[in-house]
Amino acid sequence: MSEWYFQDKAITGIPVDDRAWLYGDGLFETIAIRDGKPRLLTRHLERLSTGCRRMGIAAPGADGLAESLGAALSNTMLDLEFALARLVVTAGRSPRGYARSGATANVYTGVFSAAPLDPRLYSEGCRVRICSTRLARQPQLAGLKTLNRLEQVLARAEWHSSTVFEGLCFDTEEQLICGTMSNVFIVRGERLMTPDLSQSGVAGVMRRLVLEIAEEGGSIVEITAIGHQVLSAADEVFLCNSQFGVVPVTSIEQPHDDLPTVAGQSGKYLPAGPVTRGLMDSLRQRGYAEITC
Amino acid sequence: MSEWYFQDKAITGIPVDDRAWLYGDGLFETIAIRDGKPRLLTRHLERLSTGCRRMGIAAPGADGLAESLGAALSNTMLDLEFALARLVVTAGRSPRGYARSGATANVYTGVFSAAPLDPRLYSEGCRVRICSTRLARQPQLAGLKTLNRLEQVLARAEWHSSTVFEGLCFDTEEQLICGTMSNVFIVRGERLMTPDLSQSGVAGVMRRLVLEIAEEGGSIVEITAIGHQVLSAADEVFLCNSQFGVVPVTSIEQPHDDLPTVAGQSGKYLPAGPVTRGLMDSLRQRGYAEITC
Repeated sequence: MSEWYFQDKAITGIPVDDRAWLYGDGLFETIAIRDGKPRLLTRHLERLSTGCRRMGIAAPGADGLAESLGAALSNTMLDLEFALARLVVTAGRSPRGYARSGATANVYTGVFSAAPLDPRLYSEGCRVRICSTRLARQPQLAGLKTLNRLEQVLARAEWHSSTVFEGLCFDTEEQLICGTMSNVFIVRGERLMTPDLSQSGVAGVMRRLVLEIAEEGGSIVEITAIGHQVLSAADEVFLCNSQFGVVPVTSIEQPHDDLPTVAGQSGKYLPAGPVTRGLMDSLRQRGYAEITC
Repeated sequence: MSEWYFQDKAITGIPVDDRAWLYGDGLFETIAIRDGKPRLLTRHLERLSTGCRRMGIAAPGADGLAESLGAALSNTMLDLEFALARLVVTAGRSPRGYARSGATANVYTGVFSAAPLDPRLYSEGCRVRICSTRLARQPQLAGLKTLNRLEQVLARAEWHSSTVFEGLCFDTEEQLICGTMSNVFIVRGERLMTPDLSQSGVAGVMRRLVLEIAEEGGSIVEITAIGHQVLSAADEVFLCNSQFGVVPVTSIEQPHDDLPTVAGQSGKYLPAGPVTRGLMDSLRQRGYAEITC
């Protein structure tokens, strides 16, 4: 179930001249709602504001964005004990054409019912697959969660099995970037590693939090290039996003046999190891109650 | 002035769960309307159908698409003597998430008032600039006119002067690809050249028509890689799109001085030469009455 709001008004449609649907000219955050409150709100608003600045969209400040979200949460009839919100800033309404022509930003908020993951995904880990879709390198948009998400849609369209939890995407230079809806970390010996996102991918707020927790805990953390071989040789692999927190990966599969495969990865199983468990414990201690390892 | 239609019904909004605005999951055509009729309709519908197939969107066939367009043109109150239509196919409405989950395509049609270009652009040529925005290489989407158009928006946001008609975009490997809203051709000696669009860019229907006319006329035509030096050394440069036909380029300017510049191009003026004029004549003979060289 879902409801959408523009300011404090429920809506069923987006104006036909909003650049969001004409060009994907906007950004969004997917924010976990727990016990009625948005989780990691400051981080979400910071990322959204940074994205708007980088894209030249004159969005309201953090207070204004929080107000839009708050109005939706106040007005919704949905149960907010365990839910999520999609906070969208668009470049606004303009005449036809790529030029923004002085359009002023619009803020829309969607509120969605949600449910915790199957607890076994936390305790037993998940299956992922390597997508054959490659992400383009575009440093001007890298890291941002823009409304241009076709690469994720194409990657997600590659599998239908409900037992595959996520797809991992490499870029056109064969560097690991992220999952379709999550960031990815690997553990190798003493080191925690996650892909550099300066060319592609979305820099998630949970990724940031995991990096901070790991650094506070004294781990060696590297934001770096990760190729197929490094992924293959990992001791542990896990995914994270702002909704589910951290989920261990126990199996990485190749795309369909009729697509190009990469040597050395087929059917590899990775244990859900001590570093991943430690980070999951830290998150649970910080109130991520749904993480049940 | 504009009006939007879903089938034969005028609309003011797009459903909040249409994937077009959530992810840019769709494609569009911008079709010139002249004397009430869509121009180059078969080519537009072919490209749209090809795009839907490549993106895995189960769109209506060409007849169904033509019917949607026809319904909008029949119902609109706008003057259709000189107008344009935006025919949009989206992946449809789905629950939240990148998975399309069996969504069925939606077709929307926008009808817009339009006006011919200032005739001096045809007779005297236009000023263009090199954009500093670089286009990413994404062969899975290259050539298609998807709803993910942020790169064009960012490139178009680089200039405000109304005397600059268009911006030329290179890709991340410094290959010329296209204008923000047009395709580009260069003439060098006996050869007509236009960028290869297998990695980036939109393969316009007017580009296709120009290539066919040139080939019929016996020209040597090359679809190839074009770097900065080849552009600099061109004898003639022209732009094309389905709305304005062909416009000669007489001046190519670099981005602002505080951005990286490329040697050898600053302030270069190119004459509107005989090959461009010949193609413009051919188009006028084929009924492109607005082309006034």
